[in-house]
Amino acid sequence: MLNSFRAAATPQRGRGSRTVRVCDLRLDRREGTEKHLEISGLDFNDFLHDLKKEFSIGPREVFVVATTDRTILDFDKFKELQDGSTLYLLQHERQDLPVAAEEHINFTPHYDVVIRGGMHEYYASQGQAPLSYTLAELIDNALSATAKNEGLRSIEIRVLNDKTVGKPAVIVLDNGHGMSSKQLNNWAVYRLSKFKKESSTFASEAEGYVRPDPVPRSLNSDISYFGVGGKQAVFYIGDSARMISKPVGSPDVHELVLSKEEFERKEKNNEDVYSTTILNRRPGDSSHVKNNDERFLHALIAEERGKASFTAVVITGVQPEHITLLTDRLDIVTRQLAHIYHYYIHGVNGHVMSSSSSNSDHPTNIDIQVTLREKPPKCPRAIHLREVEDDMQTLFINAAADTFEFRATTIPERGTVEGIVRYHPFLYDKETYPKDPTVAQEAPDNDDDDNEAGFSDRARKEKPIFECFWNGRLIPYTKVSEFDWCSPRGAKVPVECYSRLSGVLFTDDRFQVTTNKLTFTDLELKLRDKNTIYTIVVNGQKSSKRATIQNEFNQWLQNCHEKFDKQVKFLGFKGTITRHDV
Amino acid sequence: MLNSFRAAATPQRGRGSRTVRVCDLRLDRREGTEKHLEISGLDFNDFLHDLKKEFSIGPREVFVVATTDRTILDFDKFKELQDGSTLYLLQHERQDLPVAAEEHINFTPHYDVVIRGGMHEYYASQGQAPLSYTLAELIDNALSATAKNEGLRSIEIRVLNDKTVGKPAVIVLDNGHGMSSKQLNNWAVYRLSKFKKESSTFASEAEGYVRPDPVPRSLNSDISYFGVGGKQAVFYIGDSARMISKPVGSPDVHELVLSKEEFERKEKNNEDVYSTTILNRRPGDSSHVKNNDERFLHALIAEERGKASFTAVVITGVQPEHITLLTDRLDIVTRQLAHIYHYYIHGVNGHVMSSSSSNSDHPTNIDIQVTLREKPPKCPRAIHLREVEDDMQTLFINAAADTFEFRATTIPERGTVEGIVRYHPFLYDKETYPKDPTVAQEAPDNDDDDNEAGFSDRARKEKPIFECFWNGRLIPYTKVSEFDWCSPRGAKVPVECYSRLSGVLFTDDRFQVTTNKLTFTDLELKLRDKNTIYTIVVNGQKSSKRATIQNEFNQWLQNCHEKFDKQVKFLGFKGTITRHDV
Ligand SMILES: Nc1ncnc2c1ncn2[C@@H]1O[C@H](COP(=O)(O)OP(=O)(O)OP(=O)(O)O)[C@@H](O)[C@H]1O
Ligand SMILES: Nc1ncnc2c1ncn2[C@@H]1O[C@H](COP(=O)(O)OP(=O)(O)OP(=O)(O)O)[C@@H](O)[C@H]1O
Ligand SMILES: [Mg+2]
Ligand SMILES: [Mg+2]
Repeated sequence: MLNSFRAAATPQRGRGSRTVRVCDLRLDRREGTEKHLEISGLDFNDFLHDLKKEFSIGPREVFVVATTDRTILDFDKFKELQDGSTLYLLQHERQDLPVAAEEHINFTPHYDVVIRGGMHEYYASQGQAPLSYTLAELIDNALSATAKNEGLRSIEIRVLNDKTVGKPAVIVLDNGHGMSSKQLNNWAVYRLSKFKKESSTFASEAEGYVRPDPVPRSLNSDISYFGVGGKQAVFYIGDSARMISKPVGSPDVHELVLSKEEFERKEKNNEDVYSTTILNRRPGDSSHVKNNDERFLHALIAEERGKASFTAVVITGVQPEHITLLTDRLDIVTRQLAHIYHYYIHGVNGHVMSSSSSNSDHPTNIDIQVTLREKPPKCPRAIHLREVEDDMQTLFINAAADTFEFRATTIPERGTVEGIVRYHPFLYDKETYPKDPTVAQEAPDNDDDDNEAGFSDRARKEKPIFECFWNGRLIPYTKVSEFDWCSPRGAKVPVECYSRLSGVLFTDDRFQVTTNKLTFTDLELKLRDKNTIYTIVVNGQKSSKRATIQNEFNQWLQNCHEKFDKQVKFLGFKGTITRHDV
Repeated sequence: MLNSFRAAATPQRGRGSRTVRVCDLRLDRREGTEKHLEISGLDFNDFLHDLKKEFSIGPREVFVVATTDRTILDFDKFKELQDGSTLYLLQHERQDLPVAAEEHINFTPHYDVVIRGGMHEYYASQGQAPLSYTLAELIDNALSATAKNEGLRSIEIRVLNDKTVGKPAVIVLDNGHGMSSKQLNNWAVYRLSKFKKESSTFASEAEGYVRPDPVPRSLNSDISYFGVGGKQAVFYIGDSARMISKPVGSPDVHELVLSKEEFERKEKNNEDVYSTTILNRRPGDSSHVKNNDERFLHALIAEERGKASFTAVVITGVQPEHITLLTDRLDIVTRQLAHIYHYYIHGVNGHVMSSSSSNSDHPTNIDIQVTLREKPPKCPRAIHLREVEDDMQTLFINAAADTFEFRATTIPERGTVEGIVRYHPFLYDKETYPKDPTVAQEAPDNDDDDNEAGFSDRARKEKPIFECFWNGRLIPYTKVSEFDWCSPRGAKVPVECYSRLSGVLFTDDRFQVTTNKLTFTDLELKLRDKNTIYTIVVNGQKSSKRATIQNEFNQWLQNCHEKFDKQVKFLGFKGTITRHDV
């Protein structure tokens, strides 16, 4: 780069020193020269004196000193100059720059990135009570952390709403592998995704990212992706997060607090907002807890003794609306969570309630529970998600008369989707397609789907067929309506049979979701691509039959209709006969 | 904080120095002591020697030195130690910590915050070609910047797809107030919102945020909010952004480049990724441009001479799919943009095409144009958004037979929404409710809204009535279906009249939108709140009549139906007569 100042690195300075960088840009210069001048302890006149000497400015020479915004320095402005500022030495206030001048800047993101990251993303869920979806981010992390547990994978969402132990708090606890102080530091780095993370302090011990092996329903417990989920979640729920973690194999507990208040204070004091400390201590040592609002921490920390490893996410400054929802409508939250993690909790076949014996065997070692502690005399409550019986997946599974399994493979990336279609028959006088218990009874006069004759011929109404799971967990706002091969065009069975279908799609992370894990970005497009191959799965095996999925599906549906639908029809109505003879 | 190490600030060090902080945590300590040791030039043995001296470790004493992750140091690990690391001096590898130890960490967000911020947010628009919505972020900024222009407010989106001048580029140019180098620095700070910005280098000159005065339709040109829009947009469109700006009243042009490549390079070299330089130069000076791929910059920079102020956002590394869309379907993009900025371009009454004289007067001084330059012999193209005649707002306005204006005021925050309902009558044999030209002809067998008799009685189909504008610009994904007072329950006119309604809502920023400006977060909830007051506006004045909006609306609708609907009905069908006598 010719004819321009190269920004030189600021030289080393002692404490309390203040320097400015002055670029000589007087009119006749062909090349820039720059000097760093020490200004601490100087007033404007002293500075001008030094300047004249350094740049050999003659006693009669006209000059001005300006900031890069062309603000001319004076006595008062000089005092406000920040350490490291770039200044111009000019002949006239508004002269052209004879050569270009570079100026150092720093543009570290504002801390709102961290504390407001989640706010707007979750609000984008349009009034649909996003609290469960933020809690889900913390459960995702706990599922990842417990993936390699030998015994029980225990995850607890502990809601404290009891003045006698402190201010309201939401705590997410898991018995997973925990975090070293390096990993805890990484946790705090917004947008540091698993693909870019250094796992160890030492480069020589770093492990790269390894894509998990394919498993049925993609229940791989590998639900970290963007490096934002945990932070978005805690600052959506409250104002402050205390991460407490003990990693496997270490005798120490590591603690890190990020809080809105601390960010604000540091910014005000012109301190580095992204600099803080991790506290390393022995398990059970709560001597650092002084804040009365958080005195429940003593009991929490006392629980640490004897745990091989764990992580606790302690959220305080909880928004009152969240506490209200968690206290008054815990059933809504647990039902949503039981839906999101249905297959993690119940295993690949989901929650089959009829075989009650196998159900009590608990097919998976994942226990997710939500506990609520209120001020006595109110009793503490605990709901294990696996005990929830009215989440939508449980309803769909248990109302299904038969299922049709398939697989979709996208070309060329070879993304694989497992799919299930379920048939919910018509029985005697009603559709058995399950109704969402959270949706209020529909007002009959608002029902566009009833035809003139007044009977509903569409069990599913406008709802799409498929709910979609990514790495085994629900992505709630993406639903896939149908595929060509299961749409009622050219149907051989009555068209209403198609409205008796529900379904599930399971993808791995070859399909993309948005950072808030609320929607897929590309699933529908890829599935509708004409190169995508659909195959039938029979008894867990790809069918070797060369039949098309369309034919197989039609046959299955016809079979369902004939075998399971019990429709009472009045045929050949002949008129009303009034019998006067009785 | 008792019994714990307080993390002391790292002391000043000379260049090339490497120090570690050692915390003495041998078992019998009641209080921690810590020392900073210089380690540059030392090997592990030298270090141990110094350590023993500093901490008076006896010749027979057993000890280990470990990182805070409890990795025991050895010869090789010692070499990898980073400057500023915290180390433990311990008696045994796995002893408990007698007191807690603090450790400094830094958690500056990863640069993916900046370069991938937009990616996923815009993808969340579910396949609906989000390019226009990213360009809109740059137009928003240009509208804000030109708000106080005396003369024409000129905004140009210049698409370069001509190998003879360099690689493809998208340039957004405006003749607004430009940015000083301080403002350009602020531009780059992700999430620095207007509410927190310092406008000047000098605290004494800082101005606080002032809410714009209320204006009709909230066309206040104040469409900046979150401090993310520009960055999201440029990195959604391409890989690199060159911001070139000349602020009002300054003779200098300021240039700043942010690029994915530079972020990646700096991270690899362990440099501060959020540190860079602004180039300050005279207008027209393109001597710093050396890259052949960007040689179009010479012509662009030559245009600077004589401009009082301007901003140019130059995006390179443009994703091929965007260039394809801009080249092949420029009409789609300009139609969407003309819709988003309809009222900025055409004024409060919108694009009324019948009064062609007043239209050619251009009621506003805003000119937004999209130009496309391809390789000759292809001709350059230019489309002024105000000339677009088939954007949805233009279609709605010109197909309306009458309008009904109202105002909604939310309590207690006193947010005000202006609303318009339009009536699109049935004329002789068809509905005049406009069809979206971008939506393909609906397949007739897919039309759930036609009733059995086969005629469509719903002009609007499933579409909600209201499109919503925030500070005068469209928020595309939030639509409000209807209000109680304009829903067909208990209607006195035929129910199909309700399907002939279109409408617009105009809000200011008392209502919240998501960071990607694609949806409102709270509009529907607030409008449906039972405390919200609706009043009728007649001739631009609030109606003084004490009539309820419901009555007024019913009357208006009845009037529309009687006056404008021209329905030909065959009544009293008597059977078919076949005339044999002709
Ligand atoms: N409960 C936990 N136990 C162990 N490690 C955890 C736990 N929670 C978070 N972490 C670590 O912190 C990192 C950051 O978590 P965060 O949820 O913020 O982002 P992420 O999971 O990487 O990505 P995503 O945005 O997809 O959630 C995780 O990748 C993981 O390494
Ligand atoms: N064309 C322009 N002319 C002048 N200043 C601009 C221009 N574009 C951006 N800026 C400045 O840069 C800042 C950052 O722009 P950016 O679009 O990234 O965020 P924002 O507009 O503040 O907020 P939002 O996220 O709502 O867009 C703006 O607030 C404005 O001060
Ligand atoms: Mg996560
Ligand atoms: Mg903006």
